[in-house]
Amino acid sequence: MRSPLYVTRPMLPDLGHLDGLLKEIWASRIVTNGGPLHGRLESELTSYLGVPTAMLFNNGTIGLLAVLKLFDLPPGSEVITTPLTFAATAHAIHWNGLRPVFADVCPETLTIDPASVKKAITAKTSAILGVHVYGTVCDVEALQSIANEHGLKLIYDAAHAFGAEIDDCPVAMFGNASVFSFHATKLFNTLEGGLVATPNPDDREKLYYLRNFGIRNEDEVVEIGINGKMNEIQAAIGLLNLPQVEQERCRRRALREMYNDALDGLPGIRFQAPQSRVKQSEQYYPVVIDATIFGRSRDDIYEELKARNIFARKYFHPICTDYEPYRGFPIFSARVEPYVQKVKSQVLCLPFFGDVDKKDVEEISLVFRRPSAVRRVRAAS
Amino acid sequence: MRSPLYVTRPMLPDLGHLDGLLKEIWASRIVTNGGPLHGRLESELTSYLGVPTAMLFNNGTIGLLAVLKLFDLPPGSEVITTPLTFAATAHAIHWNGLRPVFADVCPETLTIDPASVKKAITAKTSAILGVHVYGTVCDVEALQSIANEHGLKLIYDAAHAFGAEIDDCPVAMFGNASVFSFHATKLFNTLEGGLVATPNPDDREKLYYLRNFGIRNEDEVVEIGINGKMNEIQAAIGLLNLPQVEQERCRRRALREMYNDALDGLPGIRFQAPQSRVKQSEQYYPVVIDATIFGRSRDDIYEELKARNIFARKYFHPICTDYEPYRGFPIFSARVEPYVQKVKSQVLCLPFFGDVDKKDVEEISLVFRRPSAVRRVRAAS
Repeated sequence: MRSPLYVTRPMLPDLGHLDGLLKEIWASRIVTNGGPLHGRLESELTSYLGVPTAMLFNNGTIGLLAVLKLFDLPPGSEVITTPLTFAATAHAIHWNGLRPVFADVCPETLTIDPASVKKAITAKTSAILGVHVYGTVCDVEALQSIANEHGLKLIYDAAHAFGAEIDDCPVAMFGNASVFSFHATKLFNTLEGGLVATPNPDDREKLYYLRNFGIRNEDEVVEIGINGKMNEIQAAIGLLNLPQVEQERCRRRALREMYNDALDGLPGIRFQAPQSRVKQSEQYYPVVIDATIFGRSRDDIYEELKARNIFARKYFHPICTDYEPYRGFPIFSARVEPYVQKVKSQVLCLPFFGDVDKKDVEEISLVFRRPSAVRRVRAAS
Repeated sequence: MRSPLYVTRPMLPDLGHLDGLLKEIWASRIVTNGGPLHGRLESELTSYLGVPTAMLFNNGTIGLLAVLKLFDLPPGSEVITTPLTFAATAHAIHWNGLRPVFADVCPETLTIDPASVKKAITAKTSAILGVHVYGTVCDVEALQSIANEHGLKLIYDAAHAFGAEIDDCPVAMFGNASVFSFHATKLFNTLEGGLVATPNPDDREKLYYLRNFGIRNEDEVVEIGINGKMNEIQAAIGLLNLPQVEQERCRRRALREMYNDALDGLPGIRFQAPQSRVKQSEQYYPVVIDATIFGRSRDDIYEELKARNIFARKYFHPICTDYEPYRGFPIFSARVEPYVQKVKSQVLCLPFFGDVDKKDVEEISLVFRRPSAVRRVRAAS
């Protein structure tokens, strides 16, 4: 049996290099609350992401909580989002005393469908929360035009879109704000971590307060903030990981090509179409498996890979409207049947990080191409 | 000028020892999401704190968010708490869609006053959130009796009470749940961190879900959870710091005696009375300065210490009802004037950690005892 292969593996810096920064932290005894390494990382990420405002958080979820609070959305108002996302997206809306409203996704990109967003708008809608899912970016122009027309805030969950660009413009310059995740599973990680980026330099001050309990100074608390502080060791890891990101991205780009070649021509298997104007983040490699054509389902492939110690991820399954707390929430769609209800049982993320090699891809591709299994399932159906 | 002396200084493990655990983490590549070190620390703290349920969190604030959600308090209901606390306490109530209601404190202990809590109860009250402030524990019997009588949940913010005991019983066995903070400023720290402890083993399951987005398994999301996960490096620091805690507590106990002796007999200066049934956590050393008797105010002393590079802390100033978002919230009190409105300008926390030595205490005591300043202020008034 091969050693286990997971969807991602965290990039970690050389321990020797980390030791140098740990010595700095131990010498200063400043271990959190916006220490010097935190300041350096925030400054480097501001440049890297090409935005006026970039504020570190202890994780992306708390970043989402803060960013929804940044815009003073009316209590109880509705935020339109996609159900094909991680739980954090919908939950952050709820934690802000707002109501998540779910809209369908585009079949091509699996991002939130602007035509479906229009169907979901009511007098109570205050914002749209798009998700650049898997690293594929949303239709930013169409969403902005809807937001403008209806006076809505437009926020992006950019957990999967670190370093993505649209027409050479940083992804976080679109909409009112974007939230990145630096969780261990992400291209760039600080073990746990996140960042709120906005195109508006004036947002910095309020985000700074929101991250640290709303404290303005020794004498004033001006917001109902939270503890969103990243500690100095996480910042140290970020400082050491950041210079490795472009190389990792290149390796993943090559891996994507390998996968595309290996799976090319399989009937019923669809992989992500490249977005011509977009520099991809290279976060995930999802495939969409149509069992009616392919003969085996997403869950079949998942189990077959698992039997070989290869752990793909049914991502996103379940979708938000399948969660107990959001059960019964409708999915607004411009289609007769929401596409997301179909694709949620079709999409599978394959192992995707720099060290996945040709041999791994061949082994995975063999599972997809194994004709006996196809025949077996066809015979049984 | 002496080197700066702060109220606290984070306990940090030996870097060589940390390196051993970092090598373990680097070898496993499990850096968060409940890794092996996280499991070990949670298990050690369960024993140390003497509770059936002890769940690590990324910080105490997120622990407070989770614990309020644990009990399914009715949306919009009222939680009675003290305004003499850190911002996290009141904010966590708000983030849960609940309303903080503020009650006065006892003059002797500065903890929430049971008689004032009674004044604050309405048909909408769902819980009491007491704070073991500075390490002084609340009147747990009186609060429990009120909670029982009115069918309220009783939760403690135990950020200051790590390892405290009442009649040899662990502090977290009182009430329905307690939340500890492991922030750098705390007796036991994991840089940032926190823990929810409850006397009920059945709470473990739901807290486990709440900490990780409500995820029960690959197929089910059952709660509107949050990301409250502590990463493996923080757990490593906790594992190495925990064996040092008792020695640090002893040193602080000796320091408390030194302070008590040094400040003894000063008219208008009051330090914390020992609680006979209580093993103190030894988190903070607050003094209460009555300017009308002492001749100088808390703020005077704060400034005089600061001029000597000694950074005491006006803790808690401002109190919650002085924050912009809670301005106008009444303070329910069994007294004619809420005592907290008086004491908020009187209380000062002095430097309090093991390495504060006799010389430091003498220097601080000189500021308190300097007769010239007393005379100057008296002449001016």
